[in-house]
Amino acid sequence: MKISVIGTGLAGRALAAKIAHAGHAVVLGTRDPDQTLARTETSPTGAPPIGPWHDAHRNIPLVALAEAGGHGELIVNATAGTASLAALHATAPHDGKIIMDVANPLDFSRGFPPTLSVCNTDSLAEQIQREFPAARVVKTFNTMNHLVMVDPHRLPRPHNVFVAGDDPGAKATVSGLLEQIGWPPADILDLGGISSARAMEMYLPLWLALLQSLGSWDFNIRIVRPEQSG
Amino acid sequence: MKISVIGTGLAGRALAAKIAHAGHAVVLGTRDPDQTLARTETSPTGAPPIGPWHDAHRNIPLVALAEAGGHGELIVNATAGTASLAALHATAPHDGKIIMDVANPLDFSRGFPPTLSVCNTDSLAEQIQREFPAARVVKTFNTMNHLVMVDPHRLPRPHNVFVAGDDPGAKATVSGLLEQIGWPPADILDLGGISSARAMEMYLPLWLALLQSLGSWDFNIRIVRPEQSG
Repeated sequence: MKISVIGTGLAGRALAAKIAHAGHAVVLGTRDPDQTLARTETSPTGAPPIGPWHDAHRNIPLVALAEAGGHGELIVNATAGTASLAALHATAPHDGKIIMDVANPLDFSRGFPPTLSVCNTDSLAEQIQREFPAARVVKTFNTMNHLVMVDPHRLPRPHNVFVAGDDPGAKATVSGLLEQIGWPPADILDLGGISSARAMEMYLPLWLALLQSLGSWDFNIRIVRPEQSG
Repeated sequence: MKISVIGTGLAGRALAAKIAHAGHAVVLGTRDPDQTLARTETSPTGAPPIGPWHDAHRNIPLVALAEAGGHGELIVNATAGTASLAALHATAPHDGKIIMDVANPLDFSRGFPPTLSVCNTDSLAEQIQREFPAARVVKTFNTMNHLVMVDPHRLPRPHNVFVAGDDPGAKATVSGLLEQIGWPPADILDLGGISSARAMEMYLPLWLALLQSLGSWDFNIRIVRPEQSG
């Protein structure tokens, strides 16, 4: 499948590499590839300069957003949540395509911990779905660190990843992609329509509180049920 | 310890019974005990009429809120979140007392799933702490069903309960109470100051989405970490 990952932070890089390793034709999209490659500082969210990564992943072209839009049948939105709509406008049109949205609408303008720029009665994924009604948006992966996304077996199983979206076929495609990169089907929980993205995004403050309390982002949650329910 | 549970729904009843069983002197507070006893319908949140429960728990007096306030050294707020501040005004003054807040600020005015009446930059627990600055507010237990609160061993261990509050002594007292009603100390996670109640309350939409997806409220979450971190 032709897949474009947009956003060159830790999540975008990790997903691009893992999805390419699974055999897909992947490009990594960014607003200005030359500028992105020229950066020499670690980003505010902890991503080191992309040069060494890019040298080690020559099979993944770093391209402008419009080119990423032209390439991908499935677009992975791994941009910062507050920049996602603008970035997705640059990759449009998305008619019939799947947008796999892994972003979180974090607002760092008041410092750490960030607040959410949208929540409670709306979500980033719903905003994306409304902005691009002909796209099929699936929210997933936003509830964990990038290391866990692409290597679920680094943590003792089972632990869970969620999917939400209005299009069952798109959810099935995304779930299949999750399986290809290592997620056991039993650990993938379908939370229903795209409005459930509110629930997934509003979990972020708890994830951030756990990050601070545990002093590590190497964790995920498991839904624990009575023994007899399996 | 003299403990007053306020709120006669499923959580209030379950906590009152379990805490009394652990040996504490418990009263259950409600706005109008006669009216509460006279109800013959199941509540919108699924609580059956309290009469049979009351008959089975004669050791737990059902009292008006002012009397509950006079009794308790520790007040368990198990009222509906949108009614909590008014109820706690009726149990005041709380100087030096611990308010163990297990409520969620759920707004059902738009139907199901509810939204939160406060979130993101504030929380119910913070509102309570600001309203009663001489009280020591500890948020806990709001992230699970009442059955799990009082019987953690109904689910395969480990799974987690969170505490948040600005007063370390109050958190220690509440954690001790959690241990007395069955929570292993290792499963109790301290998320820091009372502002972390935002994180705990904003988890509710995910809890509600899981309730709908699983078709059961008999679940909780476990924080899964790499094997070597224990």
